[in-house]
Amino acid sequence: MRMPSEGDGPISGAGTLLGILRDGQARTRAELVQLTGLARSTLAQRLDALVSQQWIVPTEEAVSSGGRPAVAFTFNRSARVVLAADLGATHARIAVTDLATAVLAERAAEMPIDRGPEPTLTWLQRTFEEMLTETGHSMAEVCGIGVGLPGPVEHGSGRPVNPPIMPGWDGFPVPEWLGGRLGVPVLADNDVNIMALGEHWAARPEADHLIFVKIGTGIGCGIISDRRLHRGAQGAAGDIGHIRVASALDTVCRCGNAGCLEAVAGGAAMAARLRAQGVEAADSRDVVRLVRGGNTQAVQLIRQAGREIGDVLASIVNFFNPSVIVIGGDLSEAGEQVLAGLREVIYSRSLPLATQHLTITASELGDRAGVIGAAVMVVDHVLSPGTVDRSVAPD
Amino acid sequence: MRMPSEGDGPISGAGTLLGILRDGQARTRAELVQLTGLARSTLAQRLDALVSQQWIVPTEEAVSSGGRPAVAFTFNRSARVVLAADLGATHARIAVTDLATAVLAERAAEMPIDRGPEPTLTWLQRTFEEMLTETGHSMAEVCGIGVGLPGPVEHGSGRPVNPPIMPGWDGFPVPEWLGGRLGVPVLADNDVNIMALGEHWAARPEADHLIFVKIGTGIGCGIISDRRLHRGAQGAAGDIGHIRVASALDTVCRCGNAGCLEAVAGGAAMAARLRAQGVEAADSRDVVRLVRGGNTQAVQLIRQAGREIGDVLASIVNFFNPSVIVIGGDLSEAGEQVLAGLREVIYSRSLPLATQHLTITASELGDRAGVIGAAVMVVDHVLSPGTVDRSVAPD
Repeated sequence: MRMPSEGDGPISGAGTLLGILRDGQARTRAELVQLTGLARSTLAQRLDALVSQQWIVPTEEAVSSGGRPAVAFTFNRSARVVLAADLGATHARIAVTDLATAVLAERAAEMPIDRGPEPTLTWLQRTFEEMLTETGHSMAEVCGIGVGLPGPVEHGSGRPVNPPIMPGWDGFPVPEWLGGRLGVPVLADNDVNIMALGEHWAARPEADHLIFVKIGTGIGCGIISDRRLHRGAQGAAGDIGHIRVASALDTVCRCGNAGCLEAVAGGAAMAARLRAQGVEAADSRDVVRLVRGGNTQAVQLIRQAGREIGDVLASIVNFFNPSVIVIGGDLSEAGEQVLAGLREVIYSRSLPLATQHLTITASELGDRAGVIGAAVMVVDHVLSPGTVDRSVAPD
Repeated sequence: MRMPSEGDGPISGAGTLLGILRDGQARTRAELVQLTGLARSTLAQRLDALVSQQWIVPTEEAVSSGGRPAVAFTFNRSARVVLAADLGATHARIAVTDLATAVLAERAAEMPIDRGPEPTLTWLQRTFEEMLTETGHSMAEVCGIGVGLPGPVEHGSGRPVNPPIMPGWDGFPVPEWLGGRLGVPVLADNDVNIMALGEHWAARPEADHLIFVKIGTGIGCGIISDRRLHRGAQGAAGDIGHIRVASALDTVCRCGNAGCLEAVAGGAAMAARLRAQGVEAADSRDVVRLVRGGNTQAVQLIRQAGREIGDVLASIVNFFNPSVIVIGGDLSEAGEQVLAGLREVIYSRSLPLATQHLTITASELGDRAGVIGAAVMVVDHVLSPGTVDRSVAPD
């Protein structure tokens, strides 16, 4: 049962209005009265406040049922810009987007996360400032910053929690540090969570239940349940890289346990196996390069990895019954070589009812899933009723 | 972002009012204006309608901040009664409850579901009528009927979908058949889903993410994600009995696959294993009886089953990060004998962050989880804004 939240009182309504108008469709006062249930006088007050802050624009006329043309209102996707960053283990991607998450400028760079928080975030701050200037915008037009990090992040505070591959970052106040220097609200989350958000928003908006599996150096997934991010009780949901698989029982994982999926099917593990066979491979991108070049050992390894990941996902399909599984991360660029084994195992092991309409596909956003998702996270937050209402409510 | 639903307009509000008052706390007009955001005049209209239909009662006075005492309104849990049934493979439990799901009358009976839908539902109809009479109520006071069934049920239509142990029930229109004869709305769902609803409502209302595992003849689970039932894309979520476990690879399951959890750890499988060892055991209840009597073979089997189930749940804990796992069903009555192995494996295999605040416990409602959950399903539906508004809106 839906219970009204504190922000649901008669004072609010601007955020709800933006939520309705966000789809880009122009709507008249009469339509908005019907959709929101607000009184005409209250609606007029809200619309005036949103127009004065340029969140929406009145258009000259709209299709009307007769008589004089009605004024319609449209969401102004250029009202503000968003700064988005996807920081990985070794490389980073940064973007400036509009409020509909269209990319206005983009950069990719080598930036090892193990340099620690201050060097990384100082570089990020400078990069954001440069890119804003390039696109002709100022910090005053930025409505928020979204940052994805390659480790567990506490929801609410945006602080990393014992991140295994991020030395020096444990508990570091990323939002306060960056927000304090740039004067803009900052949200941080785990990279796989924002990838799931981005892919859902941009490529699979019709899916109620989606799982985004990132196969890179490690393996993790972001979960969309009932169209919302499922973070779990401690924000730890989606950590499937440490699920035990039979074939890995004699392999010790970097987490300390033996038999983890990541220890046989992750990019770091595969590169190590190739090196043990005398093939030069430093990381997951080298593995993909070898697979694309037709290296037999790499092809065999990645097909087997697909089956191992498929084995874990087959259980998850029975438990969770998603409508879409999206495969992303560096190794997904090996395409069908990894998807084939994964599909084979899921379709043979999961229940027919759970797989009959299941889509298993490579990420459409690819490298961009993280930055688009970081922007979606910011826009969702900025356009939520509470946030907008505080900023536009007339005194 | 929360979008207003169609029922959110100024005409509605009765359902929201009941949603607020359902907790049993008395509230004044001033409090209700604040909580709902409704105009005073609209609120008055809604309250009058609800009082005239006895959904709420005005109380003489309430604590006021000074001046004359204010009238307060309280939800009337006795306004209607609910009929609830939990139909299992071989036995059934039936209850009459009030709107706060307190049990007014209850019956347990042997009733094999494989007799088919018409004999079972005819018996259920007669039992409901008898129990209503016993409790001094009439069908006119029944606001709805909730039925749990031991198989997959299509959400919305309430029809069983290829249920493996329910011959003759595939696609049978349970709600229409029973509702047509009793003149009352009927909702049907899978038994494990309603058990999860019941346990969450009655015993674990504070848990955001809960998994209810039923270990009976088969094994399945109900999932509460973000305080709501997660059914999955085809309503197939929670079917963990057919997840593959290493120890069962040489065992063919009733589903046709080899290696299913249910084929080693379900009650039917354990009873068969005991019979193969010369121990008399027909079903899961016999297994529990033997365990309680100290039969060594049965105790060994059930401890091993606990570890097998724990192995599957360890993966689910990494994926889903629940705050509570509740163990129910016949075999849960073996208590610590099954919980010990299950906890052992989950705590050793799942990630520390996901288990640090995880509760693993036996069902508090026990045998009653299903009927309480069926009643919760009905009350949730009846008190939802759309439903109440249609029935109490003045013309």
